[in-house]
Amino acid sequence: MNGAEVLIQTLCDSGVDVCFANPGTSEVQLVAAIDGQPKMRAVLGLFEGVVTGAADGYGRMADKPAITLLHLGPGLGNGLANLHNAKRARSPIVNIVGDHAVDHLQYDAPLTSDVHAVAMPMSDWVETSTSPDNLAIKGAKAVEISLSYPGKVATLIAPADHAWTETNKPTCKAAIKPKVKLATKTAIEKSARTLRKKSNTAIYLGGMALREDALLQAGRIAAKTGARLICETFPARLQRGSGRVTVERLPYFGEMAADYIKDFDEIIFVGAPPPVAFFAYPNKPSLITNTATQQIILAAPRRNALDALTRLADALDAPKKPSLVQTPMIPPTDSGRLTPVGVGTIVAKLMPENAIVSDEAATAGLAIFPITQGAAPHDWMTLTGGAIGQGLPLGVGAAIACPDRKVLCLQADGSAMYTEQALWTMARENLNITTVILNNSSYAILNIELARVGVTNPGPKALSMLDLTNPVIDWVKISEGHGVPAVRAETTEEFHAALKQALAFSGPRLIEAIIPVPGA
Amino acid sequence: MNGAEVLIQTLCDSGVDVCFANPGTSEVQLVAAIDGQPKMRAVLGLFEGVVTGAADGYGRMADKPAITLLHLGPGLGNGLANLHNAKRARSPIVNIVGDHAVDHLQYDAPLTSDVHAVAMPMSDWVETSTSPDNLAIKGAKAVEISLSYPGKVATLIAPADHAWTETNKPTCKAAIKPKVKLATKTAIEKSARTLRKKSNTAIYLGGMALREDALLQAGRIAAKTGARLICETFPARLQRGSGRVTVERLPYFGEMAADYIKDFDEIIFVGAPPPVAFFAYPNKPSLITNTATQQIILAAPRRNALDALTRLADALDAPKKPSLVQTPMIPPTDSGRLTPVGVGTIVAKLMPENAIVSDEAATAGLAIFPITQGAAPHDWMTLTGGAIGQGLPLGVGAAIACPDRKVLCLQADGSAMYTEQALWTMARENLNITTVILNNSSYAILNIELARVGVTNPGPKALSMLDLTNPVIDWVKISEGHGVPAVRAETTEEFHAALKQALAFSGPRLIEAIIPVPGA
Repeated sequence: MNGAEVLIQTLCDSGVDVCFANPGTSEVQLVAAIDGQPKMRAVLGLFEGVVTGAADGYGRMADKPAITLLHLGPGLGNGLANLHNAKRARSPIVNIVGDHAVDHLQYDAPLTSDVHAVAMPMSDWVETSTSPDNLAIKGAKAVEISLSYPGKVATLIAPADHAWTETNKPTCKAAIKPKVKLATKTAIEKSARTLRKKSNTAIYLGGMALREDALLQAGRIAAKTGARLICETFPARLQRGSGRVTVERLPYFGEMAADYIKDFDEIIFVGAPPPVAFFAYPNKPSLITNTATQQIILAAPRRNALDALTRLADALDAPKKPSLVQTPMIPPTDSGRLTPVGVGTIVAKLMPENAIVSDEAATAGLAIFPITQGAAPHDWMTLTGGAIGQGLPLGVGAAIACPDRKVLCLQADGSAMYTEQALWTMARENLNITTVILNNSSYAILNIELARVGVTNPGPKALSMLDLTNPVIDWVKISEGHGVPAVRAETTEEFHAALKQALAFSGPRLIEAIIPVPGA
Repeated sequence: MNGAEVLIQTLCDSGVDVCFANPGTSEVQLVAAIDGQPKMRAVLGLFEGVVTGAADGYGRMADKPAITLLHLGPGLGNGLANLHNAKRARSPIVNIVGDHAVDHLQYDAPLTSDVHAVAMPMSDWVETSTSPDNLAIKGAKAVEISLSYPGKVATLIAPADHAWTETNKPTCKAAIKPKVKLATKTAIEKSARTLRKKSNTAIYLGGMALREDALLQAGRIAAKTGARLICETFPARLQRGSGRVTVERLPYFGEMAADYIKDFDEIIFVGAPPPVAFFAYPNKPSLITNTATQQIILAAPRRNALDALTRLADALDAPKKPSLVQTPMIPPTDSGRLTPVGVGTIVAKLMPENAIVSDEAATAGLAIFPITQGAAPHDWMTLTGGAIGQGLPLGVGAAIACPDRKVLCLQADGSAMYTEQALWTMARENLNITTVILNNSSYAILNIELARVGVTNPGPKALSMLDLTNPVIDWVKISEGHGVPAVRAETTEEFHAALKQALAFSGPRLIEAIIPVPGA
């Protein structure tokens, strides 16, 4: 076997069976190895941001890595933005990036670049094989690293000659059940003491603390102590909906967030670091938590959140039955002109049980989230790292991970443009995804941000740089051009009919929801 | 004035008057500064690869930099692939990349990354302002660096607070006529001695040696000595066509290139390093030049090519009149089913004088290039760095640089997908661009490369990863979705009519040229 074949066999033996790929010449040997490996599914993306975003969505839903297959430094470069989001989501991903054959690097051929340097900023771990004999060993290591609770982005650079050269080294296998650090006894005791005081306490939850099982334990604690449960603003994956323990979501803008949590005597953090402002602004603080509030780290993001909450609930002698259980709640829908709220009410009504939502709806999404909290139980994934262009690829990966579940992409128009190629992969793989483009023909968030940095009277050139109406983007045509059937909806009635039809269909569909331009 | 205003004024005073932008919150102060500066044109791209590719096209045609405006590490990451191509083209570019306010960085907000590290691999120069007072000084420095003959990629990182904070420092101005190194006297004399022998000598030309004036001097040398003129495989900008000194183009595949030049006794290099194989392959050499051939570096890429060729021609007492002047030549067109050759013959016939061709037609482009050598004089730009997704953005930049000239993008379908968003900017700015998508529904080059690395019997999964037919991409819909009118052509007659109509129109048009799937 050659290095590529041993690597791919090793990855399969380590439980990795999906490859999101955008290969080039330096990776064709790996393509051939995947070809010979029936266990490995190959999913082609026509742009690397689709590939890395899909790997993120897969990792969030499968809790194990897919591999990506990327072409040298520039191909990896194209995938960096969504790797940034994945790293912030703490998703498990193994990137396999081809490089020139080692002896070829010295000649500085046109596609030569420092692949390791390109990988570093958005990876938790980067290594390059040093011979065909250790390509697979490093591949197994990459899988292990990627599974560091809850996940890491591991990047393995594979020189082409290490892939094509024969090796006598056997395949190996990653240790796929890595040890997870637990919350310390001290942290449990301190949290318990605090909660027993029954002062004004919040438990701030993020990461793995937002899974159903962990939330159940948080709900037990709330039942016993009356603590409020607050969720980080941009969770990687929040399990919510009717019948689940519900959480409040911290507002996006720093000063609103600060105001929201200013009155707590204590905040206990599980699975997320203390929140900070997304951006800095003149004369606005970066820190959100009131200095008078005591901060207690129960479990940092890389400590077992379920275990921490369970032990804390037990220490408090909390009841088995949680409080804050969400009751079913379907808000009424207005008629007429479509708005984000209108979209939200219809989504809440029609979303099937166990749906997976990929929310990159930006300003519109902030309106949809609260309205859907009493919908059928579902998973809600958000833009963890702020690098836009995540939503559609994330949906692709989630649909590959969970073929029996409906994926719903709620997607802002401006952000959708960055990775519109994801639509083609949805069509190619016939993925069970309904995409809703919330088209306000604007980078709406930037219009708000302009004022927030002190630009109070922007001129036409500034405004034009935040405006997407010239020309208006026709998402129905773009979708159909990529192979995904699409319709446009301008009223709640049209949207209701379109969403109902799309959700009833098991393949990809797109609905362009025309919503008002902000301020118009 | 705040730091942003002083910076933008400084850039304008240094002759920089175009900004290709994809800004975010950390750059809105720069957006406002551009808004207040009537000299600076702002061109919005809806994906950063469009922005950086456009800056490359602008730099190649204007011989001065545009600025890009990019959003933090992930935004820069999205632009890296085309910056890689620009660096390989030695194009002048100044990137302005926003970062968080300095005091905000310590909080590791979601969009935080090491922007400097992201910039390094694809920049020739990277600096970060250290106060509002030196943002503009470093901006002027970036312009100077970018103008290092023939051009460099300079990246300036601008923390948001340096942009929004007031400064008393005055605007400044870049030294925009940097000193260019000349070829050494020894190199001229050695080259002259060699050529006087009238042995079998080639002059290998690249970079600035491919401009009309430099080629004229090369043609004088050829007239005197009979030397052959060979052009690098992927020139940044080759001025060619009827009435100009013509060059032979080195073949793409290493072994064909090696065979092509193996019999020369000497090769004299001007404006390009000695060629190497694009990729390595098992049992194929990386070096192309025969070891028996003497290699003489007359002028490395950063030495003045025009001066070197002129001095060499004069040293040889070459006649004023060059040889190898291209005669007008319009090849006949076959009828019926469209092929790359058919596209080439029609392009050769219809291309207006002074057109600018952005060639990312990949396998199809290799057929079109020779057929158009006797067309009306034009500039031909190619994929210098091999990072696909360059062609349409490059056309955008060229059209902004040269509003009175027709731009023709000859674009392979697979590569076009990476930066399809460029179509929107073409529509928005009403750019004088005709795009021809050569749609063979395949990564055709990879089918060839598969065999070349030794995969002789690929299975269905491998072949499917190089295949774009499921689903077939509808480029007419994609183009219209982005605001560019489009038609499809399947025969030479249809293509002739469509190209004629598109070229007669002064705004953007797209033609989807259906060409045979390779091997079908």
